[in-house]
Amino acid sequence: MTIKLYDLTDATRTIFFSPYCWRTRMALAHKALSFESIPWHFTDAAEIEHSGQKRVPVIVDDGNWVHDSHAIALYLDRAYPDRPMLMKDSAAIAQAEFVNAWCLSSIFPALRPIAVHPVFKIIHEKDKSYFRSSREAMMGTTLEETSTDPIAEKHNLATALQPAEKMLANHSYFGGGSPDYADYVLFGTLMWPYQVTGDAPIDPNSHVGAWFESLLHQFSGLARNAPRAMRS
Amino acid sequence: MTIKLYDLTDATRTIFFSPYCWRTRMALAHKALSFESIPWHFTDAAEIEHSGQKRVPVIVDDGNWVHDSHAIALYLDRAYPDRPMLMKDSAAIAQAEFVNAWCLSSIFPALRPIAVHPVFKIIHEKDKSYFRSSREAMMGTTLEETSTDPIAEKHNLATALQPAEKMLANHSYFGGGSPDYADYVLFGTLMWPYQVTGDAPIDPNSHVGAWFESLLHQFSGLARNAPRAMRS
Repeated sequence: MTIKLYDLTDATRTIFFSPYCWRTRMALAHKALSFESIPWHFTDAAEIEHSGQKRVPVIVDDGNWVHDSHAIALYLDRAYPDRPMLMKDSAAIAQAEFVNAWCLSSIFPALRPIAVHPVFKIIHEKDKSYFRSSREAMMGTTLEETSTDPIAEKHNLATALQPAEKMLANHSYFGGGSPDYADYVLFGTLMWPYQVTGDAPIDPNSHVGAWFESLLHQFSGLARNAPRAMRS
Repeated sequence: MTIKLYDLTDATRTIFFSPYCWRTRMALAHKALSFESIPWHFTDAAEIEHSGQKRVPVIVDDGNWVHDSHAIALYLDRAYPDRPMLMKDSAAIAQAEFVNAWCLSSIFPALRPIAVHPVFKIIHEKDKSYFRSSREAMMGTTLEETSTDPIAEKHNLATALQPAEKMLANHSYFGGGSPDYADYVLFGTLMWPYQVTGDAPIDPNSHVGAWFESLLHQFSGLARNAPRAMRS
């Protein structure tokens, strides 16, 4: 049975850009589970009411509603233990949580100036008021003022990515020889700017750049072939 | 045969405070290998000449000289595969390297104002000129001016430790249910201020604090029972 994924989308219902939904998309593909992406707008709370909260990703698997990308990954490993594991043991779960917490501390703050305003430009009209007020409150600036120096912002992101850059100099993936959920945690995070600006704000010649490119092509190019905003 | 560990020490040759030597101490204990700590001063380059470089930790195991804490951990797993593994697979090696790179980016900078000057106070007279000039060049201040606001410095460290704090809220160790080398990477780093200031600059009621306390008591209190500088 195909799993349903409520998946944050733009006004055209063709571009998917949520870092957390991308983690789940990659997780479902890693488990070789087919899924149906259901385009979902920020203000479509009623559609996922059954999950008991108002944010995506939410999956529905044979009547089971599961929300929160990390909880979904744990659920998929529990429900489908015979398929490739996302996190093979408690050390791998701890690593994925550490990488997630590092993304929250270091990567999301570096991405906001780059990728928050571009989201506003592509979302549905009905989402814009919610998005503007919530993001402006979080950032303490207007959306139009979040990006002040694109070159410095890209440099700040590269600095924030240094721990991954150094590790990926010696390893193909956080998972070692093959990707695991820790990889999708960072990859999903970087899919956000990739989808909304039409490009990844990372040096393609860096180790992170090569790793990102490799994951774009995983699963028959699931990420690479997804429609994205035109480069502005 | 007992492994020799060249181990950075103070003027009294009783206090060991190198974050990298502590990683190796914990690694040797994890492998249940007995070792002889050889007190070593910054300027004792000639003693470890055979390693081809001038820094510790250096181990000598049955005639094999190995230097660099990460290389030593890899060597110990390779040479003693039947003893508890420090890094059980390539994912664990990648994780330890990621945690090390994160320490370099985030934790060492937060520790320098707290723990560099206290090192100067306890090292051997012959080391002081080298230590002052190298550290002052690195930090761009005199040793006496590195710490300007101890409360803010402790707060900065807590902020830098956030990714570990969040992960350790759900897991006992980076290694999941039991410590692995990624744990010793951060633990060794924090042994530096613990040894030279007589205390760990972390909240004992935090998750990192509880994890640190637990590791202090591992291996019959190897870290807890080591002599350290008096709290100033």
